[in-house]
Amino acid sequence: MTPQDGARAVYRLGVLPSGTAGGDARERALAVARESTLEVPAGVASPAIEADLLGRLVELRPEDDGSVHAVIDYPGGIFDGSLPQLLNVLHGNISLLPGVRLVDVELSEGLCRAFPGPRFGISGIRERAASDAVGRPMVAAALKPVGLETPELASLAAGFARAGIDVIKDDHGVTDQAPSRFDDRVQRVAEAVLDTNAATGGSTAYYVNVTGPLESLTQRVSRAEEAGCGGVLIAPGLMGLEAMRMLAAGPTALPIMAHPSRGDVGPDRDSGISPELWYGLLYRLVGADSVVYVNAGGRFAWSLDTCNALNRRLREPLGSLRPALPVPAGGVQADDAPEWFRRYGSDTLVLIGGSLLAQPDPEAAARALVDQARRVAVDGESSLA
Amino acid sequence: MTPQDGARAVYRLGVLPSGTAGGDARERALAVARESTLEVPAGVASPAIEADLLGRLVELRPEDDGSVHAVIDYPGGIFDGSLPQLLNVLHGNISLLPGVRLVDVELSEGLCRAFPGPRFGISGIRERAASDAVGRPMVAAALKPVGLETPELASLAAGFARAGIDVIKDDHGVTDQAPSRFDDRVQRVAEAVLDTNAATGGSTAYYVNVTGPLESLTQRVSRAEEAGCGGVLIAPGLMGLEAMRMLAAGPTALPIMAHPSRGDVGPDRDSGISPELWYGLLYRLVGADSVVYVNAGGRFAWSLDTCNALNRRLREPLGSLRPALPVPAGGVQADDAPEWFRRYGSDTLVLIGGSLLAQPDPEAAARALVDQARRVAVDGESSLA
Repeated sequence: MTPQDGARAVYRLGVLPSGTAGGDARERALAVARESTLEVPAGVASPAIEADLLGRLVELRPEDDGSVHAVIDYPGGIFDGSLPQLLNVLHGNISLLPGVRLVDVELSEGLCRAFPGPRFGISGIRERAASDAVGRPMVAAALKPVGLETPELASLAAGFARAGIDVIKDDHGVTDQAPSRFDDRVQRVAEAVLDTNAATGGSTAYYVNVTGPLESLTQRVSRAEEAGCGGVLIAPGLMGLEAMRMLAAGPTALPIMAHPSRGDVGPDRDSGISPELWYGLLYRLVGADSVVYVNAGGRFAWSLDTCNALNRRLREPLGSLRPALPVPAGGVQADDAPEWFRRYGSDTLVLIGGSLLAQPDPEAAARALVDQARRVAVDGESSLA
Repeated sequence: MTPQDGARAVYRLGVLPSGTAGGDARERALAVARESTLEVPAGVASPAIEADLLGRLVELRPEDDGSVHAVIDYPGGIFDGSLPQLLNVLHGNISLLPGVRLVDVELSEGLCRAFPGPRFGISGIRERAASDAVGRPMVAAALKPVGLETPELASLAAGFARAGIDVIKDDHGVTDQAPSRFDDRVQRVAEAVLDTNAATGGSTAYYVNVTGPLESLTQRVSRAEEAGCGGVLIAPGLMGLEAMRMLAAGPTALPIMAHPSRGDVGPDRDSGISPELWYGLLYRLVGADSVVYVNAGGRFAWSLDTCNALNRRLREPLGSLRPALPVPAGGVQADDAPEWFRRYGSDTLVLIGGSLLAQPDPEAAARALVDQARRVAVDGESSLA
């Protein structure tokens, strides 16, 4: 299945308002293959260039819903080892066409090797977590809302650390606003968590949100390392996927958690990229150690199928790249957490955000959650996933 | 209309498969306002934070097609002066919701001031162009396809320069592949264009494509300056909008042309961002001097209304930021160019790519195009735009 060189992509050609997709599917598929590579009318490029670099339509598969899946092979020579050109070929100009959706991608091993993948991955995150965080799902909580002052966020973090939460992350909307400047927050919240760990013997990690101006990225990550953060949170949809790739390929010694904000993807779309490819394949490829996504049953109406596919993409073999940790979030209710622990299994970090903060005693609720995650392991229920 | 501080956004809430948008439009709009700001359930944040930082639903406007437009004001305090946080508030997590589309944005002057805008803009590009390029539309051509070797690209560029083309740009898919490495191309193509200018007295500008790894951006732009390029081409959809913002805010002394690849926008979508906001407002805000988009009548089936709205956004007053130059492209036929000259007026750079290369004599065809653009000015036809 893995192509020898270059990449294989599958596009869903949806039914257009003007008629069906079936009738002109071949023409549309050939247009996609040309637009993504040579981008000149037939006859302009030399026969040698057409033979070497034009995307090649391999198969057309009619689907039950009237759409057609077009399988296109892209030759290795069209790529240049960079992420921008990978994106350009897979989903560049054609992202502007109506009714074309990228639904599957297989990368050759050569292409995979051009990308860093997760430095820590699932096993690396687990090694840095509590000593009992083996064979059980992990639990994350969020520091929010924006508007809280740094001491309030630090106090919230200390409570979650006392409760044994594995990862505490900033809300991605808590950036560098007046109530909590980055430079202040990274110091004081990290200190609160480290102090609590020292008192309890715990090993809660604090992931500070480094999303912000590109010029400040390196410095913010250095500050996070110096302050003793356990990781960093970044929103590649806001800063650019290439910014995360650069961060992961650099000297950073902290796990990277990727946030899904401004993904502009969804299971409901006729165009764009499927969420499991965007978050499951591409985020992992460019170095996310853990990937937050909006879980089924939450505020975003994503299907369980999409979430399962995303989990699979993050964990399955991909060249020699490490697996990344799925982080279902986006309105997971604290009461439902045990169900998700069982359903998604132990290689999961379940993020309970607002629902935990809405409890009368967030620290006690967090402690109960961690206990439930531990019981999943004891009961062996994670094997049901 | 311009908000006092922060920003005003209008979202189209489309009809969902589950029913109509109208019935629950208020609930959906309030969910958008909350998701984009506090991101916690009602009751979690203090009354002071809710009053200060929660997005405020100002108006719901039912539309004829069953959708509802929701007008939401975002307070100044939710922003931090960075592009990532601007994107996060306007179209962050909510980009993952079904049937929510960002269709209008007004920024306060304070927010506008946080962004560089075009350094050169329309007048700056014109000043650097041929002395007769006043009061007439300008003409651009593209160097492609990928696979041509650098001497072939240089030869093509020399021909276009002899023809008096105003701007010659690399195809955005010509990056750093084996047949034409960036470092080689920037030197030799710039030299070919400069030599031709010296011989003809022309002032054709060569815009080299600097899209690539983020680590190499600064160096590639420096090379472009040293080689005598007239500008640079960058695809923010591939490198991140934030990368273009950083480039524009930096010391670069070359005009920036922005390419639309991987915009994942289109007039046909129920979600996402409207093309006129993405390319017309945001690209300009972060510093594009000229903005390539896929023109009506080309390969991408965009409507004339969308293109006109995009042109308007690029040219209209926006704080103290300069106007940016619209670059209609994406399958404009050489024969149709005069129509676009007249329709879009003199403040336009019409890019004829593949169609020019498909002519028996591209140089002669390019010369004819430039003559036509000059006649538009002589005839005063640009006033019809």
